[in-house]
Amino acid sequence: MTTELVVNVKNQVQHALAEVEKRSITNVFFVACGGSSAIMYPSKYVIDREAKNLDAHLYSANEFIHRNHSKLGSNSLVILCSHSGTTPETVEAAKFARSKGALAVSLTNEEGSPLAQASDVVLKYEWGPEANAFTTNYSVLYQLVFGVLNVVENNEKAKLVEQSLENLQTVYEKAKSKFHDRAVGFGQQYKDEKIIYTMASGANYGVAYSFAICILMEMQWVHSHAIHAGEYFHGPFEIIDEETPFIILLGLDETRALEERALEFSQRYGKKLIVLDAKEFDLTGVAEEVKGYIAPLVLNNVLRSYADQLAEARNHPLSTRRYMWKVEY
Amino acid sequence: MTTELVVNVKNQVQHALAEVEKRSITNVFFVACGGSSAIMYPSKYVIDREAKNLDAHLYSANEFIHRNHSKLGSNSLVILCSHSGTTPETVEAAKFARSKGALAVSLTNEEGSPLAQASDVVLKYEWGPEANAFTTNYSVLYQLVFGVLNVVENNEKAKLVEQSLENLQTVYEKAKSKFHDRAVGFGQQYKDEKIIYTMASGANYGVAYSFAICILMEMQWVHSHAIHAGEYFHGPFEIIDEETPFIILLGLDETRALEERALEFSQRYGKKLIVLDAKEFDLTGVAEEVKGYIAPLVLNNVLRSYADQLAEARNHPLSTRRYMWKVEY
Repeated sequence: MTTELVVNVKNQVQHALAEVEKRSITNVFFVACGGSSAIMYPSKYVIDREAKNLDAHLYSANEFIHRNHSKLGSNSLVILCSHSGTTPETVEAAKFARSKGALAVSLTNEEGSPLAQASDVVLKYEWGPEANAFTTNYSVLYQLVFGVLNVVENNEKAKLVEQSLENLQTVYEKAKSKFHDRAVGFGQQYKDEKIIYTMASGANYGVAYSFAICILMEMQWVHSHAIHAGEYFHGPFEIIDEETPFIILLGLDETRALEERALEFSQRYGKKLIVLDAKEFDLTGVAEEVKGYIAPLVLNNVLRSYADQLAEARNHPLSTRRYMWKVEY
Repeated sequence: MTTELVVNVKNQVQHALAEVEKRSITNVFFVACGGSSAIMYPSKYVIDREAKNLDAHLYSANEFIHRNHSKLGSNSLVILCSHSGTTPETVEAAKFARSKGALAVSLTNEEGSPLAQASDVVLKYEWGPEANAFTTNYSVLYQLVFGVLNVVENNEKAKLVEQSLENLQTVYEKAKSKFHDRAVGFGQQYKDEKIIYTMASGANYGVAYSFAICILMEMQWVHSHAIHAGEYFHGPFEIIDEETPFIILLGLDETRALEERALEFSQRYGKKLIVLDAKEFDLTGVAEEVKGYIAPLVLNNVLRSYADQLAEARNHPLSTRRYMWKVEY
């Protein structure tokens, strides 16, 4: 991988952490919209489990502004993300956070963007087929979050996570290769479906959410809904039958039992099940202690191939939109 | 209304608050499954906005256990709910909470139930067409939550909320009557739909969630998904067209602008829109300062008529199940 970019990412994170250290941070708000919000779910899971005192909250950007959380203030770290850096609600959220005295740290692919300008600290991440996984959004966010846990509370996992992320690109490539045929099969088999549900829990729920709202609803105009695997048995499971497709994710975190239970039930009453089990991934180079946290990143990466194959089989490119960026909203 | 039950509810809440006062509570966890979890969303919204220091978290019961939130401890209040008091995950969650030293306060319709036995304090609520709104789940939960804000942080709204809830039954009846014809029309017009989305934000999102997963998916086997009105423009809105029905809720809380924006867009590109606007409710007897918090209760109550009418038009009783309580899971 390009050493320069890796060093650059590490330096950017160190700069952000230096700003965090100047403050007395007691809580973290994850604020973004859609797919950029979805990448933050695993980070909330991390803080929920790992932090001794830090509290974590996650809101869609406009909800964050209007909800006006009373614990947002000068002891808050607000982490924002927008790929283009132009998402109006997220830009406004950064301004709102700073108006409350909070430290606003933003991830974006565009360094000179409005979001970058509205934030205290900017972390530029790489993107696209050429980008090494270490320098992409999920990885940069984890480096920041575990770094914050380290500088604020002496959490020891930051180094393990950094080392694991340095091996993420290889993990991605092996997983993509292993699941390639299944991705092709998914596209062929499900190209005519009008609705496809996704399901997961814990650190993986955001991946299910992202696939449902960004890939299926937004990019394919296929009806969808990310079902929480624990909630499944309290309503949603009544919908499953032999005709209804479910993408079921199994991660490696502490909530895996919920996903396994949901899968077991679905296998009894459903027929159209697409199962992605992180146990099948070759996670060489990822530290045992953080595999549960890394699994959603790999699931998300593999699912992108599924999206590509579905788009191709449906002859509906992932870039097709009817409203987004085209009409007023 | 039956004075005896009202006094009983107030006494129960006072008893719970006395237990809260014995502790040094710093955070509140809302823990339940499905519909019982959905009634807690407005309460999280309340604490997010109102509390000076108290933090609020909301998890599905099994996620709560397995996620093992590091800030759960002897300074935590865990509020649980299960109508029958037999929901296994919620019963386990109460035990788990107490094993961590937390105070477990449960709402249930069944005083002698496993959940009641597993909890430190039990609040029995009334239920069914005969029950006065003051004594039902949403109301009892609000009395508890605003009571906690009062005893822990001297928040002044508890009395206003209690008085407003004493008038809730009348508000419900007027709203139901006003929306009766529309509920009938909804059943007739949408009885053949295979998918119906719901949408809301802020204090009202839980109502949209409940209608999607409990009424539509569970009780009617109609595909659904509760879309957050702020997230709508970052993916889900690409799904709307003239054929896709959306139930759009407009509340009275601080996030109403999000719901209005979602409605405005939907009116341009959708045709099958079912709009419930809390501005149409006669909220006489509800204090101005808390109308935003009370609106979701009324929206939920009115939507129950919509559910009844849909079930009747579809000849699919709300009590019909194929898996729940019938098969192993």
